[in-house]
Amino acid sequence: MATANRNPEIRKDAVNNRLVILSPARSRRPSDFKSKFQAKSDSNPSSNAQPQCPFCAGNEHQCAPEIFRMPEDSSSDWKVRVIENLYPALSRDALVKSDNKEYCHSSGTSGEMSLGGFGFHDVIIESPVHSVHLPDLLTSGVAVVLLAYKKRIEQLSAIDSINYVQVFKNHGASAGASMSHSHSQILALPIIPSLASNRLSSMEEYHNQTGKCVLCNIHTDKLLIDESTHFISISPFASTFPFETWIVPRFHSSHYHELDENKAIDLGGLLKLTLQKLSIQLNDPPYNFMIHTSPLRVTSSELPYTHWYIQIVPQLSTIGGFEMGTGCYINPVFPEDAAKILRELEVVSRE
Amino acid sequence: MATANRNPEIRKDAVNNRLVILSPARSRRPSDFKSKFQAKSDSNPSSNAQPQCPFCAGNEHQCAPEIFRMPEDSSSDWKVRVIENLYPALSRDALVKSDNKEYCHSSGTSGEMSLGGFGFHDVIIESPVHSVHLPDLLTSGVAVVLLAYKKRIEQLSAIDSINYVQVFKNHGASAGASMSHSHSQILALPIIPSLASNRLSSMEEYHNQTGKCVLCNIHTDKLLIDESTHFISISPFASTFPFETWIVPRFHSSHYHELDENKAIDLGGLLKLTLQKLSIQLNDPPYNFMIHTSPLRVTSSELPYTHWYIQIVPQLSTIGGFEMGTGCYINPVFPEDAAKILRELEVVSRE
Repeated sequence: MATANRNPEIRKDAVNNRLVILSPARSRRPSDFKSKFQAKSDSNPSSNAQPQCPFCAGNEHQCAPEIFRMPEDSSSDWKVRVIENLYPALSRDALVKSDNKEYCHSSGTSGEMSLGGFGFHDVIIESPVHSVHLPDLLTSGVAVVLLAYKKRIEQLSAIDSINYVQVFKNHGASAGASMSHSHSQILALPIIPSLASNRLSSMEEYHNQTGKCVLCNIHTDKLLIDESTHFISISPFASTFPFETWIVPRFHSSHYHELDENKAIDLGGLLKLTLQKLSIQLNDPPYNFMIHTSPLRVTSSELPYTHWYIQIVPQLSTIGGFEMGTGCYINPVFPEDAAKILRELEVVSRE
Repeated sequence: MATANRNPEIRKDAVNNRLVILSPARSRRPSDFKSKFQAKSDSNPSSNAQPQCPFCAGNEHQCAPEIFRMPEDSSSDWKVRVIENLYPALSRDALVKSDNKEYCHSSGTSGEMSLGGFGFHDVIIESPVHSVHLPDLLTSGVAVVLLAYKKRIEQLSAIDSINYVQVFKNHGASAGASMSHSHSQILALPIIPSLASNRLSSMEEYHNQTGKCVLCNIHTDKLLIDESTHFISISPFASTFPFETWIVPRFHSSHYHELDENKAIDLGGLLKLTLQKLSIQLNDPPYNFMIHTSPLRVTSSELPYTHWYIQIVPQLSTIGGFEMGTGCYINPVFPEDAAKILRELEVVSRE
């Protein structure tokens, strides 16, 4: 797996219309990449009961209001709880302002625009037990988390002024997690964020040129890591970060919340395997994952070319001024190399 | 400076067409923001001579080839050296391939595109002395660094296949600096990166609507920090990060390398003051700065609305899955508050 002979390459990905510089690190082979900071060292993994942790079973009263739990009729034996974020980035109380002139300010001369910060910010507690992380759950347990996302998105999409829903997970302090108890978050926005609208345009352009959906037609070849009945995991052609991994539905689907129970179990198994592989190979790195779905109110003409997927990014490198200034990332690991390493890695199943 | 009464707000900046969520931190006042990691603790500030540091005077032979030094005829008494990066992200040797079919691969069916990684990656050593950081220099010394950027950009712009030049500085390990000796970097690219083309489009849209250049017309009001003869420093209306600061020319100028010697001294003073203020207020934070100039080959019709500026970002917060997924940042400090704090801060001049 020598990279000494590889020359740097500039690649553009057809899904996001994003440029990346693939530039092999001189000093390290792809298989040498490891996280400097183990994500779990943030927490106290040995003990189950954490009296100070509001996410642990028994401390439910310390949390912001619950939205629902799964199973629905469970009491102390819940598997997943969806609650309001105690420190929301957006305010659900700003709703009344959407009918109000004060909601949106726009200055013709400055070109500046401001909106009241209306939106929803929820937390999904993935397990009642402090030391159990997402890939430690049984496949059926991961599926319950995935179905909780689906149910909450369905609720949020019923609200007229919500136009986009971002599901994401921060694992480890340096990936942005402020709580060590395994959890993910959902932010529901009145606007469509720029990366989502860029992605929609890029997918449209591909569809106009080829008549096909870019993610239905994605090349796997040397980039495939694993596959299940309904999903594949791949290193993307223009990986922005070392060991960035996508999980893509094989079937065409514009919105994540179209996921049914059978497919959730299938996806749960592949997500668990992927997170296990990244943890083993990269020394339990902090990571983020993001579900990239489509804007809630897409038109029927947009449906043939929008296709959701999950992006998983282990935190192995530092962002510097070049990336911040240009939006173009320098990635020292070619995705072909990352895919080969992850494909060949064997995981002893714990189920 | 209580923020308890502020409600979250979504703002769009007219320069970059970028959305940000301003959402006051519940637990901290804007004046309480401090860096957790002091940038200078990476280095050994007490000693001047660092036998292991290739950027120190006396160790020039340990570096990659020199491009030029300032003053030009200096020997061991140089002030600034511009050298090749020993580990370049792009290869200047790939130049020959630009005439070659192998330079650009494009797959019609996958929509994927790859280019040979041609480009230049240079380092500007800002001082011969290990412990001297950029704002420690006299104003005239900062001006020499700024004029070295200008000279190198002029050289790079003479190369036909170079279309964009990004000047940036990473200060402190967590801002991406791998060397503690004060330096900045220049990457010259064959392509125009997405943030630069987005900015150009956004500035064009503003110009079409108002007939004016957005940065000539920028509102300062409560956002002004300091001003010099030819420049202003401001907190931008839609600050992406806490205490993000821009230095904007008062005069219309599309390209950084139009800077002349007089204006470089004026800018040097304001840049020094701004970096001193951020260091005092925020406890010597790691930071990045980026010079946002225009693509090298803009048309004459684009010149009236493109305007360069410097963006300075102290590293105080962690990027999580929401920001990575959406491109929309959550900033807990309103720019009006940051501007007031920085405006009122007094710096005892060391000149």
